[in-house]
Amino acid sequence: MRRLRYGMVGGGPGAFIGDVHRMAAGLDGLAGLVSGAFSSDEVASREKGRSLGLDPGRVFGSFHDMAAAEAARPEGDRIDFVVIVTPNHLHFEVAKTFLAAGFHVVCDKPLTTTLEDAETLCRLVAQAKTVFALTHNYTGYPMVKEARSLVRDGRIGRVRRIQVEYLQGWLSTPLEETGHRQAEWRTDPSRAGAAGALGDIGTHVHNLARYVTDLEIEELTAELTTFVEGRRLEDDAALLSRWTGGARGSLTASQIAAGEDNDLSLRVYGTEGSVAWRHEEAETLRLRDASGRLEILRRGQASLGDDARGASRLPSGHPEGFIEGFANVYRAVVDAIAAHASGDYAGALAGDYPSVWDGARGVHFLDRAVASARAGTWVDARYTPPEEPQK
Amino acid sequence: MRRLRYGMVGGGPGAFIGDVHRMAAGLDGLAGLVSGAFSSDEVASREKGRSLGLDPGRVFGSFHDMAAAEAARPEGDRIDFVVIVTPNHLHFEVAKTFLAAGFHVVCDKPLTTTLEDAETLCRLVAQAKTVFALTHNYTGYPMVKEARSLVRDGRIGRVRRIQVEYLQGWLSTPLEETGHRQAEWRTDPSRAGAAGALGDIGTHVHNLARYVTDLEIEELTAELTTFVEGRRLEDDAALLSRWTGGARGSLTASQIAAGEDNDLSLRVYGTEGSVAWRHEEAETLRLRDASGRLEILRRGQASLGDDARGASRLPSGHPEGFIEGFANVYRAVVDAIAAHASGDYAGALAGDYPSVWDGARGVHFLDRAVASARAGTWVDARYTPPEEPQK
Amino acid sequence: MRRLRYGMVGGGPGAFIGDVHRMAAGLDGLAGLVSGAFSSDEVASREKGRSLGLDPGRVFGSFHDMAAAEAARPEGDRIDFVVIVTPNHLHFEVAKTFLAAGFHVVCDKPLTTTLEDAETLCRLVAQAKTVFALTHNYTGYPMVKEARSLVRDGRIGRVRRIQVEYLQGWLSTPLEETGHRQAEWRTDPSRAGAAGALGDIGTHVHNLARYVTDLEIEELTAELTTFVEGRRLEDDAALLSRWTGGARGSLTASQIAAGEDNDLSLRVYGTEGSVAWRHEEAETLRLRDASGRLEILRRGQASLGDDARGASRLPSGHPEGFIEGFANVYRAVVDAIAAHASGDYAGALAGDYPSVWDGARGVHFLDRAVASARAGTWVDARYTPPEEPQK
Amino acid sequence: MRRLRYGMVGGGPGAFIGDVHRMAAGLDGLAGLVSGAFSSDEVASREKGRSLGLDPGRVFGSFHDMAAAEAARPEGDRIDFVVIVTPNHLHFEVAKTFLAAGFHVVCDKPLTTTLEDAETLCRLVAQAKTVFALTHNYTGYPMVKEARSLVRDGRIGRVRRIQVEYLQGWLSTPLEETGHRQAEWRTDPSRAGAAGALGDIGTHVHNLARYVTDLEIEELTAELTTFVEGRRLEDDAALLSRWTGGARGSLTASQIAAGEDNDLSLRVYGTEGSVAWRHEEAETLRLRDASGRLEILRRGQASLGDDARGASRLPSGHPEGFIEGFANVYRAVVDAIAAHASGDYAGALAGDYPSVWDGARGVHFLDRAVASARAGTWVDARYTPPEEPQK
Repeated sequence: MRRLRYGMVGGGPGAFIGDVHRMAAGLDGLAGLVSGAFSSDEVASREKGRSLGLDPGRVFGSFHDMAAAEAARPEGDRIDFVVIVTPNHLHFEVAKTFLAAGFHVVCDKPLTTTLEDAETLCRLVAQAKTVFALTHNYTGYPMVKEARSLVRDGRIGRVRRIQVEYLQGWLSTPLEETGHRQAEWRTDPSRAGAAGALGDIGTHVHNLARYVTDLEIEELTAELTTFVEGRRLEDDAALLSRWTGGARGSLTASQIAAGEDNDLSLRVYGTEGSVAWRHEEAETLRLRDASGRLEILRRGQASLGDDARGASRLPSGHPEGFIEGFANVYRAVVDAIAAHASGDYAGALAGDYPSVWDGARGVHFLDRAVASARAGTWVDARYTPPEEPQK
Repeated sequence: MRRLRYGMVGGGPGAFIGDVHRMAAGLDGLAGLVSGAFSSDEVASREKGRSLGLDPGRVFGSFHDMAAAEAARPEGDRIDFVVIVTPNHLHFEVAKTFLAAGFHVVCDKPLTTTLEDAETLCRLVAQAKTVFALTHNYTGYPMVKEARSLVRDGRIGRVRRIQVEYLQGWLSTPLEETGHRQAEWRTDPSRAGAAGALGDIGTHVHNLARYVTDLEIEELTAELTTFVEGRRLEDDAALLSRWTGGARGSLTASQIAAGEDNDLSLRVYGTEGSVAWRHEEAETLRLRDASGRLEILRRGQASLGDDARGASRLPSGHPEGFIEGFANVYRAVVDAIAAHASGDYAGALAGDYPSVWDGARGVHFLDRAVASARAGTWVDARYTPPEEPQK
Repeated sequence: MRRLRYGMVGGGPGAFIGDVHRMAAGLDGLAGLVSGAFSSDEVASREKGRSLGLDPGRVFGSFHDMAAAEAARPEGDRIDFVVIVTPNHLHFEVAKTFLAAGFHVVCDKPLTTTLEDAETLCRLVAQAKTVFALTHNYTGYPMVKEARSLVRDGRIGRVRRIQVEYLQGWLSTPLEETGHRQAEWRTDPSRAGAAGALGDIGTHVHNLARYVTDLEIEELTAELTTFVEGRRLEDDAALLSRWTGGARGSLTASQIAAGEDNDLSLRVYGTEGSVAWRHEEAETLRLRDASGRLEILRRGQASLGDDARGASRLPSGHPEGFIEGFANVYRAVVDAIAAHASGDYAGALAGDYPSVWDGARGVHFLDRAVASARAGTWVDARYTPPEEPQK
Repeated sequence: MRRLRYGMVGGGPGAFIGDVHRMAAGLDGLAGLVSGAFSSDEVASREKGRSLGLDPGRVFGSFHDMAAAEAARPEGDRIDFVVIVTPNHLHFEVAKTFLAAGFHVVCDKPLTTTLEDAETLCRLVAQAKTVFALTHNYTGYPMVKEARSLVRDGRIGRVRRIQVEYLQGWLSTPLEETGHRQAEWRTDPSRAGAAGALGDIGTHVHNLARYVTDLEIEELTAELTTFVEGRRLEDDAALLSRWTGGARGSLTASQIAAGEDNDLSLRVYGTEGSVAWRHEEAETLRLRDASGRLEILRRGQASLGDDARGASRLPSGHPEGFIEGFANVYRAVVDAIAAHASGDYAGALAGDYPSVWDGARGVHFLDRAVASARAGTWVDARYTPPEEPQK
């Protein structure tokens, strides 16, 4: 397969996730960074490009300039896709710009800060027929894929209870007042959107639960709380939910869970058994049957399903982690772009990566949760994003 | 200290918890069973008494007869207290009867099936000035006591989030239709009360969270679901809650969590750190500070607080379990009865055991949760039980 | 079944294990303490008897007096068995005395401080045809019994590697110089015997490995080390071993493993799979097959074998611990005494408790390990204790 | 820093570790593969080169040809170092060849199959003054580095007991007879050397223990066992050892531990506490003090030492794994080559990577273990490799 070229928007000084994207995209040698608008501060962007060994002629302070310049390059030289790792409020404009220029897009979550923008992107992608992936990277973990396979195969029967949590403690204090860049924009409604913790991490577990169960939330009641004085967005969120088919859910997303690093977990209980996955032990999956028999499945085992095995690079007992999970999203994107290149757009859409429509569902979920929290009631959360293709 | 004598109502054939009470009460040699009305089926009751080696003259089919007979015995011979381990709907009548006869009472949870009955018991206990303990046995675990001590000592700062769960899978199928006695009465509103899973196990974690944090729920919204067809009470419950001081809580109590045995857990996050306890690893407590430093505290360690050390029988590394935790409630009861005997009723009330007022709070909690679930809204859950003494 | 009566020798002030024996023997209501020589200091012994509520006429400073007095009592009143919880050097004399008086015996490990004494006891028991149990209590854990059942049933195939450890840290410093009674006698060759850590805790894992595998050590090489200056017995021991059938073993027993409480573990690898049990998680057993499939078995599950289920008191998820494991040895002893009483001595011998011959094997193991360590070579460790009945 | 170029010898079809080296070397963008002799089968080698997108002119069937061709290239174009991932018996010849051609070397463990060859390499490296690194990759894990820092800082006092294990189950059956390439050469003395399991995995834990403690084995007694019939090298090894300063050790390395994946663990007990690390939970380190206080340290925490923090790429809670650990060896190699390039050979030698002298120590350890196993006695294991520079 041809090694793809990509550009990056965002990921400048003080950022963390840009490096992860670069390590993940490069892990299997499938895609290399060639271009970037790492910061709107042109000096900072150029400095970053230099540190990455990029051609200075392909490093910009403006993503508009970058899109134009890349589009002007000959086909075998221009980027294949762009990676958007800016704060949330820029996702829409950057994505729109690169879609308009004919590029595939990999975008960080949440998709946009408004539902309207999200729906516009859905339509643009449907019209442009490009590949658009949202990096809900936790779906890239092999044992998450195994959980989904087991649920699909009926191993736990009909789903009854969906228990997800994402607990962090790093915003327990007003970190945004200390000059901490990531805290700053994440707690600023003009950059993060209408939701704080729920937007930043709650959408991950919302998407994860959807991914594993193939179900959707129909109704929800949410409680959004701001614990740190002066903060402008909630730093703690809890929801109850009712899912298609009657399952019930509890979701907690908190960034004031003092002492927690990044404790994301999922448990799904069905009529015949249950699966439990926890990010802190990402290499294993707990499978119980109704009699209480507990099996610990491990990444790399020959007995796992195709999806989990295909997403694994090392034998069991040789731990993989965050970067490999992330890299699995990139693998699927590269495959989708190859399918697209060969004219198989249906194949490109069918890939195992979160889509723009998944992204719109996430933004709608935030919208409904904020509405519920304001009203103090259950709200309808059913939703079909525009122009979503049948899978 | 004098070894006390007690009688038991309930705990006949097919019961489980009666044996636990007997092992727990006897563990430290502080109290011995001498009398019983183990079943309203007199033959079954007598058979049980025989198997326990009791004097047949002190075994009855009717708890009224038993109360009368014991009251008629001379002081140094009659029982000191009665243990009530019947289905929920009998707690009130049995407790009232033995209180009227002047006996101290140990009663299983939940206290009663109606709030009115619970409040009546509160008043009767206040008037009779007897010792009344509710066996919310999970508060007896040393590491739960350590969690409370750490919270009281300010080690985790001001409480912000309270996360509790109690997950079982044994009612995933209509077990009550197979002749399973414990399933039968727990799913029958006339014997269990208005709540199913929430009454049976949710009250345990409600009480546990109150015990560890010294806080109370002020508002809640609840979702009660009956998954198993034909079942008359909910088998799955989830709540969001607002606590005194502003803390937020999530509570899940489910008996259709297929594959789970008895997975009770508590996590409390404060401004300065957090504590986490899980029944499956009852001998340890996880303490994190705000920087993420994680210490595993273990029962039996010299560095623990007085309450945890006092509730421990064996050195660390020699596992204690369910019976020892239960026995700690009995120890406190025996101490309270001794205090009572010496005229120190304040001391008797101050003991570290769940009181009749804790019981009323639990029944009120159920009442509010059922009301919220019916209305689909947040409800006020503030409550002061009648005639509760100042602690 | 008739409730048995027992007496105790040892377990006076400062002792720990005496209380464990009393809680364990009493847990199921099968046996009650009625008599004792708790200390050779008659005042201390009487004080202990008083605290236990014993008839002062059955409390002694001399175990000889006690044996004589009990033997003089009428049959339906005298003790059924004696429990020996003295320091090691007294086991022999006390056991001999009570055997001579016709009593059954429960004795702490190791059996004796010399092989000669151990063999004498074997012969006395064989001649007296009484019940004699050694409290290698770790064999009482249900999940240890499950491990044995699985090995016996061929679930792991032919045994190849036996990995056992017993690590404690409490003797990391010269605690015996601070007046700590238990440290004093355990580090004193005249009271503990020729082995220190290996005698105190190494014999437990030696016996545990034998119990689970039904195999015996044929050759061994040992390293015994005294780390704490001035200590007279080894505080750290490691062995390599060759077992019947060709299995290989590693054993470590250390009391200077700083920071460890009581970390006993066993792993057995066979041609078809493996089992692993660790005292710190005594309620579970890890079973792996050759493909790496890992199942976590839990006490109380219906799928376990008869032995494990029979040794269990509470449902899964309600933790049992040290006392219950110990109590299982007592249950087997009480059953054996009942079989003996009914004339079924073969049945009494077949019980699931460690025998005097197991004890002799343990003493022989110590003898061989000490010899190997002195010589710095492999030694023959095959052994058949005298007059051992066929099982 | 300039991105380095490297070539690879070995890692052709059926190999596993070659891919790991490539992902690890490329993770941080520090070095790129440009040349290779992936197989002595030229067709296979070329096919591999093609799949990796290499210039066909730099892909060879003979490593001699490759060394000559690379040496003939101009300085700014030729490889900076070679990576040797062949079976053991080729390490020596390949290393010698590339050293002679003036290249730096990264070589898989064990260094060579004979001590003589290992010592020759020591001398050649000392004379050539090149960078030579052995990929004992487990030393690359941040929490292993933290363990070393804690030991160096005296946090556990003077070391007393060193407990290491490396357990795998994949050779439980005669896999080498099924055409499994990795099993074939690992069980063939002409390719693997005189030791089987001990050479393949035992050297890893030997090196790990040395790395963490800065101590060396002075005497050892070993037991090497071949369980699988027909196998020509041991598949199971156990050792007792005496270390400088008096510490005692137990080491087990087995490839017939049925059901185990890759269970490598290290525990070090000192006078003041202990550290424990296990590959299956590579992101954490258990630190206990003498009182039993247990802290779980996690990779990425700000409180860790410089070495652990410097070896970490992601925040705590975002799991790193095998590739990142491996990549840390490469980082150190790249740094050393940069130091070398700037004329600082002392700096190049001081890097945190296993050296050719570490490799010679590993080969000597194997030599002594084989000798001890044959003799059935303790043997002297003290050793100083030739021309080792002072660190």
